[in-house]
Amino acid sequence: MDAELRAAFDGRQGMLYDLLRYHLGWVDERGNPADAALTPLHHCGVMALAAADAVSGGHQPAIAAAAAVELAYNFVLVHNDVQAGRIDQRDDRPSIWWVWGPSQAINAGDGLHALARAALMRLSDVGIPSDTVLAALRSLDQACLTLCEGQYMDLTYQDQLMVSEADYMDMIGRKSGALAGCAAQLGALAAGAPADTAAALRQWGENLGTARQIRADIADLWGISGDGFTPSNVLNKKKSLPLIHALQHSATAARRELGGIYMKRVLEPDDPPRIVAILDAAGSREYAAGKAARLLDDAASAVSSAGIRLQQPQSLRQAAEWVIAQASA
Amino acid sequence: MDAELRAAFDGRQGMLYDLLRYHLGWVDERGNPADAALTPLHHCGVMALAAADAVSGGHQPAIAAAAAVELAYNFVLVHNDVQAGRIDQRDDRPSIWWVWGPSQAINAGDGLHALARAALMRLSDVGIPSDTVLAALRSLDQACLTLCEGQYMDLTYQDQLMVSEADYMDMIGRKSGALAGCAAQLGALAAGAPADTAAALRQWGENLGTARQIRADIADLWGISGDGFTPSNVLNKKKSLPLIHALQHSATAARRELGGIYMKRVLEPDDPPRIVAILDAAGSREYAAGKAARLLDDAASAVSSAGIRLQQPQSLRQAAEWVIAQASA
Repeated sequence: MDAELRAAFDGRQGMLYDLLRYHLGWVDERGNPADAALTPLHHCGVMALAAADAVSGGHQPAIAAAAAVELAYNFVLVHNDVQAGRIDQRDDRPSIWWVWGPSQAINAGDGLHALARAALMRLSDVGIPSDTVLAALRSLDQACLTLCEGQYMDLTYQDQLMVSEADYMDMIGRKSGALAGCAAQLGALAAGAPADTAAALRQWGENLGTARQIRADIADLWGISGDGFTPSNVLNKKKSLPLIHALQHSATAARRELGGIYMKRVLEPDDPPRIVAILDAAGSREYAAGKAARLLDDAASAVSSAGIRLQQPQSLRQAAEWVIAQASA
Repeated sequence: MDAELRAAFDGRQGMLYDLLRYHLGWVDERGNPADAALTPLHHCGVMALAAADAVSGGHQPAIAAAAAVELAYNFVLVHNDVQAGRIDQRDDRPSIWWVWGPSQAINAGDGLHALARAALMRLSDVGIPSDTVLAALRSLDQACLTLCEGQYMDLTYQDQLMVSEADYMDMIGRKSGALAGCAAQLGALAAGAPADTAAALRQWGENLGTARQIRADIADLWGISGDGFTPSNVLNKKKSLPLIHALQHSATAARRELGGIYMKRVLEPDDPPRIVAILDAAGSREYAAGKAARLLDDAASAVSSAGIRLQQPQSLRQAAEWVIAQASA
């Protein structure tokens, strides 16, 4: 996988690519090689590989597809960092936005968006028929569009106090489910799966991607860093399932308090722990965890009830466990 | 063309698409239909249609390709508006950035980027062979990547006083030439042109797109609005060929004065006319106009010397005249 991701940069000269390499952890801010670690894989890449493994008993056929969805996911991360004004990224490295400014970060994300498709073209080079490659490209385009629909809603909901659970679930289905579903579908297609198998794995991926987001929001709100830690969800006034649950199921006084905190321009130190206390009192953590668990069940039954044959169905279960464990850490 | 652009939105529900429709001039800020005008076409769409006309004697086969490059060009415009903080757009309508903020504008541009490729997929629906569609998609991806390389350089040069003419020409070849060349190539491919013809038309398009940018910069610097008009080039500290020429060919005092103005945080009212006066004294306008004229010659000879047969070569000349006239207005 690492080699395939690096191959997407083969022959590409210019400083733009140093920004992208920096984002992927390969070079430091000055373009010097970083400590030689393998590129950390996100859930999208892992899910593409797992889908191929489930279908054909091996990861190999899906490596180009996995690299493409990883690059697409990284495009989204780079633009989300600008949209959220995020200074720190994983591994305590500052975001492209922070080092090179918003204009360069927008441009770097655009580059990753184009590079993701260029990487998917490599399916042609390994003998995948042109019609299958076109279907894969169509799926990736549609997933990116659906993701933008979800991102539109997410940004809109930031300025809005009351969001229904149905609207929220619709939003994360697009924002967090679509690309994950596409990843699984592309992995299956690359491994030679027939259309119904690829469609079932796509549903698996959409449910898993959505469950992952809910678990990540729980992990963020009830962060392991303890006192003084401010959940990024709260800082960005992002809606999350626990918050939406609490806004609907708390007593009037608690609802008003939550609303008051979310209307503030600048949060005070006491606000994040108060939010979490109100969410705890409303049982919102358990509610959201239950919803994530049901989505995981839906993911499993999307595959088991589809009447399809898989060579290694256990790869899907293992991938789901990994994805949820990563999101919950 | 208008119908084809609108067809890219068929069946797409959600507010995200209202932002995109607003950008294209179809609806107002509240989503109500705007005065029913045809969507104004940019040079990319026109060049795709002209290339098809030159190859096959008709526009029709290239309509999907033209819509795709138009959408791609609009993606670039929407992101450039955020990067430049541009309030007003053509026709005195405020940019998406100004109405909905930078985060939504980044997301809207991302949506147009994905939509451009989805539009290109429609080539499959009109019977173009899958391998040709793949070649077209590959070309569009590569053009978008090259454009990002150029945009990286352009943003970097904003903070840099001395930029060599060679570096500058390399930059606008990527930023302004690549997508225009792709447009002509896709138009030719859609019209059934063999690879060598499509390659020649791509060169034609790259040269024309680069010439267009130089003419647009001249029009911007020596704007027709007269006194009090501040060229957007100057406001954004963008490098342009006339400025680069003057920085290299003016007397020391004038060079220092130019440098001093470009180092200011905020321009004073006298600065823009002073810049233009220095450029006039150095003969920079004539120099840049001469360079644009040579690029137009290069565009014409990329076609005439390639030993290819065109059914309607005059379409290319007419398109070039239209593109240059639009940029010079």
